[in-house]
Amino acid sequence: MTHIYNFSAGPAVLPKEVLQQAAADMLDWHGSGMSVMEMSHRGPEFSAIYQAAERDLRDLLAVPDNYRILFMQGGGLTQNAVIPMNLVGRTATVDKPATVDFVVTGSWSAKSHQEAARYASVNIAASSRAQGFSTVPPQAQWNLTPGAAYLHLCTNETIDGAEYNFTPELGGLSADTPIVADMSSHILSRVIDVSKYGVIFGGAQKNIGPAGLTLVIVREDLLGHALPCCPSTFDWKVVADNASMFNTPPTYAIYIAGLVFQWLKRQGGVAAMEQRNIEKAALLYAALDADDFYSNPIDPECRSRMNIPFFLRDASLNEAFLAGAKQRGLLQLKGHKSVGGMRASIYNAMPIEGVQALVDYLNEFAGRGKA
Amino acid sequence: MTHIYNFSAGPAVLPKEVLQQAAADMLDWHGSGMSVMEMSHRGPEFSAIYQAAERDLRDLLAVPDNYRILFMQGGGLTQNAVIPMNLVGRTATVDKPATVDFVVTGSWSAKSHQEAARYASVNIAASSRAQGFSTVPPQAQWNLTPGAAYLHLCTNETIDGAEYNFTPELGGLSADTPIVADMSSHILSRVIDVSKYGVIFGGAQKNIGPAGLTLVIVREDLLGHALPCCPSTFDWKVVADNASMFNTPPTYAIYIAGLVFQWLKRQGGVAAMEQRNIEKAALLYAALDADDFYSNPIDPECRSRMNIPFFLRDASLNEAFLAGAKQRGLLQLKGHKSVGGMRASIYNAMPIEGVQALVDYLNEFAGRGKA
Repeated sequence: MTHIYNFSAGPAVLPKEVLQQAAADMLDWHGSGMSVMEMSHRGPEFSAIYQAAERDLRDLLAVPDNYRILFMQGGGLTQNAVIPMNLVGRTATVDKPATVDFVVTGSWSAKSHQEAARYASVNIAASSRAQGFSTVPPQAQWNLTPGAAYLHLCTNETIDGAEYNFTPELGGLSADTPIVADMSSHILSRVIDVSKYGVIFGGAQKNIGPAGLTLVIVREDLLGHALPCCPSTFDWKVVADNASMFNTPPTYAIYIAGLVFQWLKRQGGVAAMEQRNIEKAALLYAALDADDFYSNPIDPECRSRMNIPFFLRDASLNEAFLAGAKQRGLLQLKGHKSVGGMRASIYNAMPIEGVQALVDYLNEFAGRGKA
Repeated sequence: MTHIYNFSAGPAVLPKEVLQQAAADMLDWHGSGMSVMEMSHRGPEFSAIYQAAERDLRDLLAVPDNYRILFMQGGGLTQNAVIPMNLVGRTATVDKPATVDFVVTGSWSAKSHQEAARYASVNIAASSRAQGFSTVPPQAQWNLTPGAAYLHLCTNETIDGAEYNFTPELGGLSADTPIVADMSSHILSRVIDVSKYGVIFGGAQKNIGPAGLTLVIVREDLLGHALPCCPSTFDWKVVADNASMFNTPPTYAIYIAGLVFQWLKRQGGVAAMEQRNIEKAALLYAALDADDFYSNPIDPECRSRMNIPFFLRDASLNEAFLAGAKQRGLLQLKGHKSVGGMRASIYNAMPIEGVQALVDYLNEFAGRGKA
């Protein structure tokens, strides 16, 4: 077995215990004689798996009773269309199409508003584009639309590396506007107050499990407003009324996510995980900040704990840096092509030993600590 | 390990060799140090998996060069909306919305036309509803719409058990109408002529692999007509132009499907598999037809080789039949709730030994062969 640390932004590292369990269960889950992949989604075996996964996620995030958890398909990019299809019908009239507000803090929120523009009038309430997506505009600067159908945020930008360091609170003319948060790349990495959001969504392939599973947590009063053009399989009310079984769900991905949820509980839950994530991120940022050999462009107030882009002062060393990293089993450190440089994604499943190995290499490559 | 035969209609039995390979690869695929689930979809390891899967499927079905293979999400039910979203724009005008033709031969084609009615005017060109979905209306009886945007068929009805025993040929006023075939539950079970169809689609969870993967095989000239309301992730042209990587594909499901394709090649390909499927189905139907203890309601000309519903003459014995089957490791034989009775799904991965075990039990339960 090759020993590596995998810094991929997603699909990404999973807990080794989870993979070991999956390998052990592969041909015969709990004496059923079947692989989880072979089970009818309506049979008692998979129902037990599904219900445990739903319950464990509800526990981990303290999801209130008036929120539904949906296990869907299509990833965050599909939800970018599905969200307006489900929400703009609440406020649109024939005379006045709905307006939706966006705060743009990186590539993901930018992609999201482009897709939403198919279904509604889009208002960019705030943007950090002029700052190279290096910060999150404070809420006091947001130019919100009274009566907007929803406000869309990406609370952790996987590519650009900015993470919200506050939970927005809407009031006044925006009091009825639900906040929709794309938490794909940091869900379950920190304690959140679900009740502050109308919708929380995310692809599983970053901090939860395999690609092909999409989580949606939605407040019940937001169900039932889908546009006529919304496919039945993406009408949140249809999905909720059928406990995510209107169509065949991605059963194996739900099973793996369920194993990850169990693993998180064994780790002490989300609060304990958050402490470890704070520690891991601090270790890595300290190495990047030690001198000007490396740099991270993000406002220190809103540096992501999950996705950490960084640059070598001398970009001509990039290839040598990546080659040396690979030689040490430090994989997938190349930055996203739209940003360049490097990126280390250090999700829940990345052990601190992996971060330490990267830090050791950062120091070594920078020639630090030599006599 | 409990020894069982799994007759589930889907998710369904997979080849044991495939599951053994998946278990062996789980923590370290080909010395990469990573599980397939942990690989970036854009990295060299997963690219190799993806390309092999695409190439093997193209070989197995002899897909012509002017057809694209798309690996999507959302299942057949999502395609029921995605198909009209992609095809009605070819023929619709502001003054005249598109018409789409359907041949209804069971529950799946019925569901499909209900969803299509959101996007187009639906014409039921033929239906076997009056015959209890026990047959496929011959093409001579189809009442097609000249210039229809497409003709939708479900060439094997998983729930009701009728399978097309002919390949439709459209001509005259329908010569430009592409045939869209839902082959979810019999794709790769028999030789097909892809060039006779405009679009072939199917969820993977019946005859290919895990739930959460959806195959679409589409003729290139049908790309590029998506309606403005079609989410980008479901615009076939966007998916094709990005080699199914516009959004993160269901990577692990594609890997398993790829292992199934390799297994099919080792079995001799689709033609060899078809011969085995003919043999398996003949064995089972012979036991059902031996006397009137059991019955199968489908016109013998179009009995499915994959999904075989059957009834006990004395329905009061149903529970005893299922209990005895379970005791012998013959699982998931209960019929769909909309039809009742029993159903045996005998996909490619069901070995003839499994069918023989079921036949032995059918004979035993009917009291046959006793002195």
